[in-house]
Amino acid sequence: MKIQRVRGTRDFYPEDVAVRNAIFDAWRRVSIRNGFAEYDGPLLEHLDLYRAKSGEELVGQIFTLNSRAGEELALRPEMTPTLARMINARVQSLPRPVKWFSIGPFYRGERPQRGRLREFYQWNIDIVGSDDLLADAECLFVVADLLREIGLTASDVVIRINDRRLMSAIFRAVGIPAEHHAQAFAWVDKADKMDPGALAAAWNESLGSFVSFDALWPLLAIDSWAALQSSSDRVLARADVEDRRSDVGRLFSLIQDFGITEFCDFSMRVVRGLAYYTGVVFEVFDRKGARRALCGGGRYDNLLAALGGPNVSGVGFGMGDVILTELLEDRHLTPPGRGGLDVFVVVADESARSEALRLVAGLRGRGVVTDFSYRRSPVGKQMAVAASRGAARCAIVGTETRERQCVSIKEMTTGRQVECRVEAFLAEPMAPLGEASEG
Amino acid sequence: MKIQRVRGTRDFYPEDVAVRNAIFDAWRRVSIRNGFAEYDGPLLEHLDLYRAKSGEELVGQIFTLNSRAGEELALRPEMTPTLARMINARVQSLPRPVKWFSIGPFYRGERPQRGRLREFYQWNIDIVGSDDLLADAECLFVVADLLREIGLTASDVVIRINDRRLMSAIFRAVGIPAEHHAQAFAWVDKADKMDPGALAAAWNESLGSFVSFDALWPLLAIDSWAALQSSSDRVLARADVEDRRSDVGRLFSLIQDFGITEFCDFSMRVVRGLAYYTGVVFEVFDRKGARRALCGGGRYDNLLAALGGPNVSGVGFGMGDVILTELLEDRHLTPPGRGGLDVFVVVADESARSEALRLVAGLRGRGVVTDFSYRRSPVGKQMAVAASRGAARCAIVGTETRERQCVSIKEMTTGRQVECRVEAFLAEPMAPLGEASEG
Repeated sequence: MKIQRVRGTRDFYPEDVAVRNAIFDAWRRVSIRNGFAEYDGPLLEHLDLYRAKSGEELVGQIFTLNSRAGEELALRPEMTPTLARMINARVQSLPRPVKWFSIGPFYRGERPQRGRLREFYQWNIDIVGSDDLLADAECLFVVADLLREIGLTASDVVIRINDRRLMSAIFRAVGIPAEHHAQAFAWVDKADKMDPGALAAAWNESLGSFVSFDALWPLLAIDSWAALQSSSDRVLARADVEDRRSDVGRLFSLIQDFGITEFCDFSMRVVRGLAYYTGVVFEVFDRKGARRALCGGGRYDNLLAALGGPNVSGVGFGMGDVILTELLEDRHLTPPGRGGLDVFVVVADESARSEALRLVAGLRGRGVVTDFSYRRSPVGKQMAVAASRGAARCAIVGTETRERQCVSIKEMTTGRQVECRVEAFLAEPMAPLGEASEG
Repeated sequence: MKIQRVRGTRDFYPEDVAVRNAIFDAWRRVSIRNGFAEYDGPLLEHLDLYRAKSGEELVGQIFTLNSRAGEELALRPEMTPTLARMINARVQSLPRPVKWFSIGPFYRGERPQRGRLREFYQWNIDIVGSDDLLADAECLFVVADLLREIGLTASDVVIRINDRRLMSAIFRAVGIPAEHHAQAFAWVDKADKMDPGALAAAWNESLGSFVSFDALWPLLAIDSWAALQSSSDRVLARADVEDRRSDVGRLFSLIQDFGITEFCDFSMRVVRGLAYYTGVVFEVFDRKGARRALCGGGRYDNLLAALGGPNVSGVGFGMGDVILTELLEDRHLTPPGRGGLDVFVVVADESARSEALRLVAGLRGRGVVTDFSYRRSPVGKQMAVAASRGAARCAIVGTETRERQCVSIKEMTTGRQVECRVEAFLAEPMAPLGEASEG
């Protein structure tokens, strides 16, 4: 009976883990140098945690399960509710702002599609407990710092930025009542994903009585910071809209101070799908492809309160591994895996096998990456295995090891070989061969 | 509405992640230096993968879930079936022996108990494709190498070793038919976990017609390699049993070559609960406590074949994080978390905030762990935040930075402070202060 892996999940063979770990390491390195501390929560949460935040629609896309004790559980679809729960539990004692990151698996209950698996990994960055626009700017810096770290440039990717408060002011200005803004955000979020005609029809059916899609389009078409600054659309000139536009201006000024202007641009059509965003929102896109966003985030003001906590604001983002890995492959930026063995111990004479095992144990105990063959085989064959494993050097153990405590060290790149005492070799296993041979 | 975390799961606050990462790092370091390559599988598998291997009883302890597509899925309770599935999928191309390790979360569907959570992390080491006893010995070496690496000594812990083939030979010798050996293994596995009277009664009820518990007890009481060697029990003298005893002797000789004798001992009562073990089996115990095993493993000869693959043998073990973390705490060996910030940037004058952000960005871009305060506050207060964050040094940015591109560097341990040019500081941010001040 041959059992397959579950659709929408991945097997990670060593070469895949090497890529995954290189991405995880970059995420972790960038987080730490930006002053974030790592946390993690369970993969299992009560389904109610997501009901409280997302409403029944999103809950429909969650992988749910029932425990034997009758609990309604979920495999976490995203990190923010867990973060809010954990901060709420220690809200009195945590110094603010809380700057936390995490890396781990997440789940979608829906049918797998290209770029959307049922099991994927995500990096989450959050700053909780500061209303300052500096926190929003710092999130954008962390995104850019990561993009640079993995070799992507401003000609590869762009962070498209907007502010939901600017959008709300515009919606109000064109006559959409507040209770219909959620619907308006939902349609704008689909602007670059749906057929334009279908979108216009959908908008007009639900919101056309307030403003037609065609009337709003000149504003939605604004897709750069330069275009927003230079636009003379009279809606943007309204006092409350103008206030919000100058907030965006302040953000772009901080972006300049942080030196990441080349990575950032404004887009009126970025609003994020999740209902809980309340301020700055952003998504990262491949400039050359029509791929899904490889990162998205923004400011959420009411999330902790909605989960029974205090009225504390946060800003953050999530970056998944699937689209990122595809993009890196596409740009030939896939990080190299780690190197091979330091030392391969070759057994030239079976009578010295005990000496060989002692040497293997001694090397490993000193942190040297060491391996050997279980099977008796000719020295040449063992050398070939050593070469295939990328060994830097071979240590050849034979009768001279048993009789005189000597071992021959062969450097694999040069082919140079010298004999030295086992003790001297163990003292400095990776020392240049000239010195090792003195022993 | 305040939602709690799911019972039997853990929240990892930064101080908890620090411990978890230190353990993961030790697992990974030891695996790599012993010549193992990292792999991983999905957390979701088809429930049938475990049915094929464990039978319905174990399946009852698995967290199951149903997908919208009607699949019967499971949260992985252990790694070996996934390993077997992945090796089977590439059985023609993988060079043998396959030496692989993985680190990740696992799940139990049962009610949580002390030391047995519903969500836990486990390190898995496997060597597949070698029948050589050297592979078994190497697994034991890896266990001992890890124990040493995290600071545990042979007076803290012991690896108790047995061989199921020895046990089978003994069972045959005392008259238990082969079809009842699985039951006999199950009772022996409970020998140190159940009340002796209850165990004897249970044994006698199911197997007493072949041999009484009291008659077998002198053999089961053998709990050291010395006792096994010196025992004159006539069952051990039977030819087929004696052959198996000498196999154990060969293993202990390899253990000696590997230099881990102090960590290893024999125990007739270690047989492992899982039905698929066929040879050497072992468990690691705290010598001073009655805790559960912190590691267990052994040789499995038929697992790949049972999952539709070739008849290839394997040996491996799993080590969980829960008991290990408790033991390390108990021995005051909890690894220290990583250090604090390299540099905290203090804004002494708000007019220089842009310069401060540029400095923050420049330091981070060079890999220096850097942070700063969003809020305007007196220099003394910012210094206090820097101290609480464990910063090695502060970089004080003020009007002189804007006017003369100079910054004051304060070393937090000595209180020493020197002024230097921003450019010189960025070139070597962590250089000793004397040199930096030349700029």
